[in-house]
Amino acid sequence: MTEPLSSFRSPRFAQPPTFMRLPHSTDLSDVDVAMVGAPYDGGTSYRPGARLGPREIRSQSSLIRTWSYFLKVHPFERLRVVDYGDFDVPPIGIERAMDVIETGASAIHAAGATPLVVGGDHSISLPLLRAAAKAHGPLALVQFDSHIDTWDDYFGGKYFHGSPFRRAIEEGLIRRDRFVQVGIRGPMYGEDEFDFHRAHGIRVVDIDGVKREGVDWTIDQMREVLDGPVYLTFDIDSVDPAYAPGTGTPETGGLTSHEAQRLVRGLAGLDIVAADLVEVAPPYDGPGQITSLLAANLLFEMLCVLAVRKPRRRL
Amino acid sequence: MTEPLSSFRSPRFAQPPTFMRLPHSTDLSDVDVAMVGAPYDGGTSYRPGARLGPREIRSQSSLIRTWSYFLKVHPFERLRVVDYGDFDVPPIGIERAMDVIETGASAIHAAGATPLVVGGDHSISLPLLRAAAKAHGPLALVQFDSHIDTWDDYFGGKYFHGSPFRRAIEEGLIRRDRFVQVGIRGPMYGEDEFDFHRAHGIRVVDIDGVKREGVDWTIDQMREVLDGPVYLTFDIDSVDPAYAPGTGTPETGGLTSHEAQRLVRGLAGLDIVAADLVEVAPPYDGPGQITSLLAANLLFEMLCVLAVRKPRRRL
Amino acid sequence: MTEPLSSFRSPRFAQPPTFMRLPHSTDLSDVDVAMVGAPYDGGTSYRPGARLGPREIRSQSSLIRTWSYFLKVHPFERLRVVDYGDFDVPPIGIERAMDVIETGASAIHAAGATPLVVGGDHSISLPLLRAAAKAHGPLALVQFDSHIDTWDDYFGGKYFHGSPFRRAIEEGLIRRDRFVQVGIRGPMYGEDEFDFHRAHGIRVVDIDGVKREGVDWTIDQMREVLDGPVYLTFDIDSVDPAYAPGTGTPETGGLTSHEAQRLVRGLAGLDIVAADLVEVAPPYDGPGQITSLLAANLLFEMLCVLAVRKPRRRL
Amino acid sequence: MTEPLSSFRSPRFAQPPTFMRLPHSTDLSDVDVAMVGAPYDGGTSYRPGARLGPREIRSQSSLIRTWSYFLKVHPFERLRVVDYGDFDVPPIGIERAMDVIETGASAIHAAGATPLVVGGDHSISLPLLRAAAKAHGPLALVQFDSHIDTWDDYFGGKYFHGSPFRRAIEEGLIRRDRFVQVGIRGPMYGEDEFDFHRAHGIRVVDIDGVKREGVDWTIDQMREVLDGPVYLTFDIDSVDPAYAPGTGTPETGGLTSHEAQRLVRGLAGLDIVAADLVEVAPPYDGPGQITSLLAANLLFEMLCVLAVRKPRRRL
Amino acid sequence: MTEPLSSFRSPRFAQPPTFMRLPHSTDLSDVDVAMVGAPYDGGTSYRPGARLGPREIRSQSSLIRTWSYFLKVHPFERLRVVDYGDFDVPPIGIERAMDVIETGASAIHAAGATPLVVGGDHSISLPLLRAAAKAHGPLALVQFDSHIDTWDDYFGGKYFHGSPFRRAIEEGLIRRDRFVQVGIRGPMYGEDEFDFHRAHGIRVVDIDGVKREGVDWTIDQMREVLDGPVYLTFDIDSVDPAYAPGTGTPETGGLTSHEAQRLVRGLAGLDIVAADLVEVAPPYDGPGQITSLLAANLLFEMLCVLAVRKPRRRL
Amino acid sequence: MTEPLSSFRSPRFAQPPTFMRLPHSTDLSDVDVAMVGAPYDGGTSYRPGARLGPREIRSQSSLIRTWSYFLKVHPFERLRVVDYGDFDVPPIGIERAMDVIETGASAIHAAGATPLVVGGDHSISLPLLRAAAKAHGPLALVQFDSHIDTWDDYFGGKYFHGSPFRRAIEEGLIRRDRFVQVGIRGPMYGEDEFDFHRAHGIRVVDIDGVKREGVDWTIDQMREVLDGPVYLTFDIDSVDPAYAPGTGTPETGGLTSHEAQRLVRGLAGLDIVAADLVEVAPPYDGPGQITSLLAANLLFEMLCVLAVRKPRRRL
Repeated sequence: MTEPLSSFRSPRFAQPPTFMRLPHSTDLSDVDVAMVGAPYDGGTSYRPGARLGPREIRSQSSLIRTWSYFLKVHPFERLRVVDYGDFDVPPIGIERAMDVIETGASAIHAAGATPLVVGGDHSISLPLLRAAAKAHGPLALVQFDSHIDTWDDYFGGKYFHGSPFRRAIEEGLIRRDRFVQVGIRGPMYGEDEFDFHRAHGIRVVDIDGVKREGVDWTIDQMREVLDGPVYLTFDIDSVDPAYAPGTGTPETGGLTSHEAQRLVRGLAGLDIVAADLVEVAPPYDGPGQITSLLAANLLFEMLCVLAVRKPRRRL
Repeated sequence: MTEPLSSFRSPRFAQPPTFMRLPHSTDLSDVDVAMVGAPYDGGTSYRPGARLGPREIRSQSSLIRTWSYFLKVHPFERLRVVDYGDFDVPPIGIERAMDVIETGASAIHAAGATPLVVGGDHSISLPLLRAAAKAHGPLALVQFDSHIDTWDDYFGGKYFHGSPFRRAIEEGLIRRDRFVQVGIRGPMYGEDEFDFHRAHGIRVVDIDGVKREGVDWTIDQMREVLDGPVYLTFDIDSVDPAYAPGTGTPETGGLTSHEAQRLVRGLAGLDIVAADLVEVAPPYDGPGQITSLLAANLLFEMLCVLAVRKPRRRL
Repeated sequence: MTEPLSSFRSPRFAQPPTFMRLPHSTDLSDVDVAMVGAPYDGGTSYRPGARLGPREIRSQSSLIRTWSYFLKVHPFERLRVVDYGDFDVPPIGIERAMDVIETGASAIHAAGATPLVVGGDHSISLPLLRAAAKAHGPLALVQFDSHIDTWDDYFGGKYFHGSPFRRAIEEGLIRRDRFVQVGIRGPMYGEDEFDFHRAHGIRVVDIDGVKREGVDWTIDQMREVLDGPVYLTFDIDSVDPAYAPGTGTPETGGLTSHEAQRLVRGLAGLDIVAADLVEVAPPYDGPGQITSLLAANLLFEMLCVLAVRKPRRRL
Repeated sequence: MTEPLSSFRSPRFAQPPTFMRLPHSTDLSDVDVAMVGAPYDGGTSYRPGARLGPREIRSQSSLIRTWSYFLKVHPFERLRVVDYGDFDVPPIGIERAMDVIETGASAIHAAGATPLVVGGDHSISLPLLRAAAKAHGPLALVQFDSHIDTWDDYFGGKYFHGSPFRRAIEEGLIRRDRFVQVGIRGPMYGEDEFDFHRAHGIRVVDIDGVKREGVDWTIDQMREVLDGPVYLTFDIDSVDPAYAPGTGTPETGGLTSHEAQRLVRGLAGLDIVAADLVEVAPPYDGPGQITSLLAANLLFEMLCVLAVRKPRRRL
Repeated sequence: MTEPLSSFRSPRFAQPPTFMRLPHSTDLSDVDVAMVGAPYDGGTSYRPGARLGPREIRSQSSLIRTWSYFLKVHPFERLRVVDYGDFDVPPIGIERAMDVIETGASAIHAAGATPLVVGGDHSISLPLLRAAAKAHGPLALVQFDSHIDTWDDYFGGKYFHGSPFRRAIEEGLIRRDRFVQVGIRGPMYGEDEFDFHRAHGIRVVDIDGVKREGVDWTIDQMREVLDGPVYLTFDIDSVDPAYAPGTGTPETGGLTSHEAQRLVRGLAGLDIVAADLVEVAPPYDGPGQITSLLAANLLFEMLCVLAVRKPRRRL
Repeated sequence: MTEPLSSFRSPRFAQPPTFMRLPHSTDLSDVDVAMVGAPYDGGTSYRPGARLGPREIRSQSSLIRTWSYFLKVHPFERLRVVDYGDFDVPPIGIERAMDVIETGASAIHAAGATPLVVGGDHSISLPLLRAAAKAHGPLALVQFDSHIDTWDDYFGGKYFHGSPFRRAIEEGLIRRDRFVQVGIRGPMYGEDEFDFHRAHGIRVVDIDGVKREGVDWTIDQMREVLDGPVYLTFDIDSVDPAYAPGTGTPETGGLTSHEAQRLVRGLAGLDIVAADLVEVAPPYDGPGQITSLLAANLLFEMLCVLAVRKPRRRL
């Protein structure tokens, strides 16, 4: 049985921590969603520490309960969810790391399950997209982020946390006009950063758009673009540093936690085939670890979004 | 005289800290409002530390001044307010703790004063409601909270910080249809959590309501329900963890500090006979201790709300 | 050349930190904007530490890039900007400190450059205003703040961080009806605090105004007042403690970071002749140092506002 | 197989954390040592938080390796050790908590295994002693502590973290003249605190003794007293707050970490039948969590001490 | 009655904090020792924050009990001790601050009581020495410190936390050959710093001396010098930053907490007429606030040292 | 002139931070010692963050003064020392990083200067040894460390922070019998870890040796081994976590800060041709940043050791 351990039978602070107090299992048979950590931060250009994200998010997720008041769904009744553990990503060598992650995610897809991956830095999205596209064909993509992450290279390397989506487009993993970025802001390098966007039909909903037009309008924007199998990537730095200080490249002036939750909920009904939440770096958070708590809640929203659409395969 | 110690005569950081730099006095004669700590956190189901709330809130309240710009009232001129100290609640045994708190609060009511109580965890509200109902009869109740706190039992015990208002209703302390909860959100256990609400006429203004309809609408909702003698309980976790990280069971996606302040101000004119502010747990706050600072400001708003209605008894 | 050091040539975390990774230079020839620290906090009435502001803001500003997406301007192409270092303000004796700051700022004005000064506490604005008014005549003033800072004296002294703007008016540095304060809130001492405002035509946009009427309206309010040479002073405590916990006299219920950024951007086109950002006190921030990061971003917005109007003098 | 997960196969920061990266198992068959958490802190008289000890110690214990350089022993080869999880101790009601702990520990003894228990506050030692004495008869006891913990009552209750060893003696769990306390210091209440010691033959090695006479002498003192089945209890506050800030009632002037490690090693060869390490309260530690790291290392020393004597039962 | 509030009647974390839970009283009649804060840090040359020392030390001193195990004395039985509150030292202007402190301390001496003063930075020792010398004539002085604090001027000012003892000698407050400094270390400016020492017969026991020769030898060194009425000043930075990180100018390689406690105890029997403990700056401490806890314990040792010699005046 | 900026002319907290307030210069002509950062942590196996070491050590080194009281030397008079900035090591790809570091260090040697390098993790020592051996031939090596760092591979890679000295021996950079490790301790993998030591004549002075035999004996041990050109590498985790919590793989039971300082001083007179200090990871330190302060002091000791032997080349 995969219900989270009840806090009325075992106090929230007890037992070795797993995601949402789910059973830790590496057996994928009969699993709908595999929550899994990808603790790699070797693609980080500024403050490292996202490798410690999965561990802290496990701890903070002990506050998650089992029913969504807003979506009226019991995700753990409709879906069999497990803590699949972490991909054992060695911290040295980004190509090697990407191989380990792609292989791991492919195994989850192969078992017919949906990977819900907890980073790690944003470079992990590329191998995850590779695995998802191998299983489901080219994908629509929704990216919550303050940064565009479509830069080209970094000190001569092709891979770091600022380039995964350029690589993904180059590799044909993402469908034209089916890629939307939400929350973009911050000082940049120049207007020409968006040449790539124009060439590939990437839609940007920048932070001023979200704030001025509101959450419902933003949801409409996203849903206009998204269609067919969807990959969801949530960079925690799309949220304002007040709500998510524990991240490596924080960007002032972002989403509130409530906006972030409502935006994720707004994806309910879409065919999300894989998702990640990245860039939680606990060393930069305060003692309350509110960034990891927010991450845990956003992962819960993602589970609910998955549950709304996908009934339990075998009951 | 009970004016707060002026920061132009004694710097804000000087002298043994009391609530709002008021005199510490256990003499209730001629007192309108007794600010008092109830440093008990033995009812906490997750992270403890709220027993340290009153001490830190005393420190941070040294920034409070004497006039409300928004309500145009001088609370310390209209009301004689003292720091009554803390109830000496032993940390072991919740029934015993509740007795100490009820006895202490009853003494304040008996002296004709209004208790303004600083927790401590939310379990303290039950003995405080008992004392208030003994003095004033069944009460209307407004609860700012992210959690409903009407669960039934916890490991076989009737008392913990998740059950005070179920107990209060069972004990007849709260009037039917005169109980409103504001800020409710977060993962829950199921729709049936609200059976109790329906059975007892509890109104819920959830966080989406507040955010979508706004503060003024929320104030209207509260005032529709509240009538006669009112008990006000403010759980700091109704506010978002960005603004109030220092709490034991933080809940993502909550009120902003400005919304919280305006909502409390919106109660001006009601007949509030007792109030508490609970669940500030300083160990989970950052070095700025912004949660305790927010708590101090909300206590100031409560004093102003009391002052608007109640002129000084004897001048 | 004064471009910030590129993070594609030197990683963001490398090299001795300067403001925005600009060259550190004390040569003012051919400089448009001199960013300079004024690390003085001897005017602080509560928690000290703002003397450590410039150092931490230098570190956090390494995340700043070179183009404003929202204002569509390259400030470092249009303006020659340097890190001029800090004024060597001794920590003992406020009159002496003010002399050092005024002398230093006057040198910058004399060189035809605009000082962009990083405090330090708010007492530094008085000598900066003296220098600016000497160079440009009486000034319009826009003050982002939670406090009015027009108190009269403090333990018999004329100078502390709560009095600079009363002194500035008394000294004739500010033009009548050309002074606007934005973000005012918090417990005060009484209605008569505003007698001085009425006597001198100071306009107040309090926090409820900003929140109720919105950012665009607030920008209109500011621009109605501002005219001719303008001095911009930004007290970080105008922003809510959730976004800016690292400050000495935090005030609950303030601006969000996004509002703050948009308000500064709203000043584009005005003739700003000098500016400061004050009251960042790193010891009260968390490990993410989000207050200094916000400060760095607001300084970037100020540079962009300057750049929109002032093309590079000599190209 | 119960070897800790190798950091050359799975990075130290990966996978759901367990004690020393051991398998989490509730199957006691063929187990020599069951490491288990007792996350109860309801007996704490000052700063709570020890309920969060087992979780953090699990995280920090990921740095533990498999061989003792100083004792020249491979504990995980000689002993089959598991992470048995936590006792599900409800946070309300100390008698109930003690029952849960005693029952749990008895099950471990019944399976022929040695419990190595991670607190929690010091009140957990009483039920653990009850279980151990039930299995092994009256015990010798070595207590590392800054406090004597033989006070009589606390607000009329018999049980809190200051009384477990008085209760244990009253209940006949400890052998006369076979009880030694090491590290005692700090302000006390009076000479008569030691009347109980004299009456029951408790030997005290105070901190001045340890510092003046040295570690080897202290080991001799302990070994003179200890004989037959031994219970080892290690209160982390025996160590100085510099080395162990994360505790509820810290006491200045204590052991260094190196002294603590050597003292535990000095027990090698004794017949230790049960052991605990208590009072680690992570909220009061810094971001490096050095207290939990020290705790993990002391638990490793305890395992090595057990391994020196007890070869694996079945190989 | 001036016994500290018992933790068996009122829990340690309850009630407005005072030094050692003593009554707060400004009535000096029949008082033997007045504990008093001097929250001034305007003489600090590096990191400010010592003005917040008295407040935090009050909080952490709630762990102090009533009997010295090592000196076998009940200080609160032998001496009537009160928390006299703080001197209301304005934060601006060091001459003014020194006047307030000298006046306040003189009042304590005039009442026949001994001031035990909690700083504040080391500049407060000068006015305290003035007051003590006025009452008792020129004094012997023992200074625990990492710095010599006999520099001459600072940016042209005579007064800052690096010069109090040069000023005191120049003013004739200290007796020749009766001044001993313990714990001196750290990078300095040159051999000639000690010219002043040679000219005035100041004995230095540097840290290598203490470490090599031991605590008992160091006590002998101090007692050789000290004679007649003695002033004791303890700069917390004499202790190593591991034990006392919360200070403004920390100096690596210092005393341990145990050495510090034993050194203070070693002064028992001397005629100490006034004492201070300075330079605790809580913002630089961790969440455990171990520096303030150490300070509280050292203040307890000082009280015990006073109690050993001075029986209660009137019993 | 390369004297550190005087704190009597510019306060310690002012100006862009450089190592010891030295001038930042990339001109090596006429330089004796180039202090330089190597902010690379991609070789870290556990908690990353050492890339942020040079920046924080620069800040904390502002407390360093100019004369060694214990060695009686003015290092900045005898040696021309500059802050050479950082090697611009890209964070991705360890071979590339090592190339950048080797090239940079070789340039320093080529200019006739001694590199004093601030890490970064311990993997940087390999390219630094390559550069030093290229300039000076095979070297003697003294390594302060808790770990042996002679492991062979890590997830199939040859380079990480646990293997530099095995690689260095394999590459012939270190002289047989001229390699001594000081401070070794902690759980290990087995006796066979020392096979490599025996094969290559590496001497180990473990922590028990240092503690039991003392600092002077340890110095003798080191000096017996060291001869000819010496490379000095100081891993901050040789020091106990109480003194150095800010590090990635902390090891309980280590050196005190005073022992560390004396041990480095004990190398005075040796022909040290290059040195590094590594593994300071500021995110795991507390707000006092005592680890970086200790690092700054140890770097000062290294400078003094260099200065004792090497007079200024040209005066």
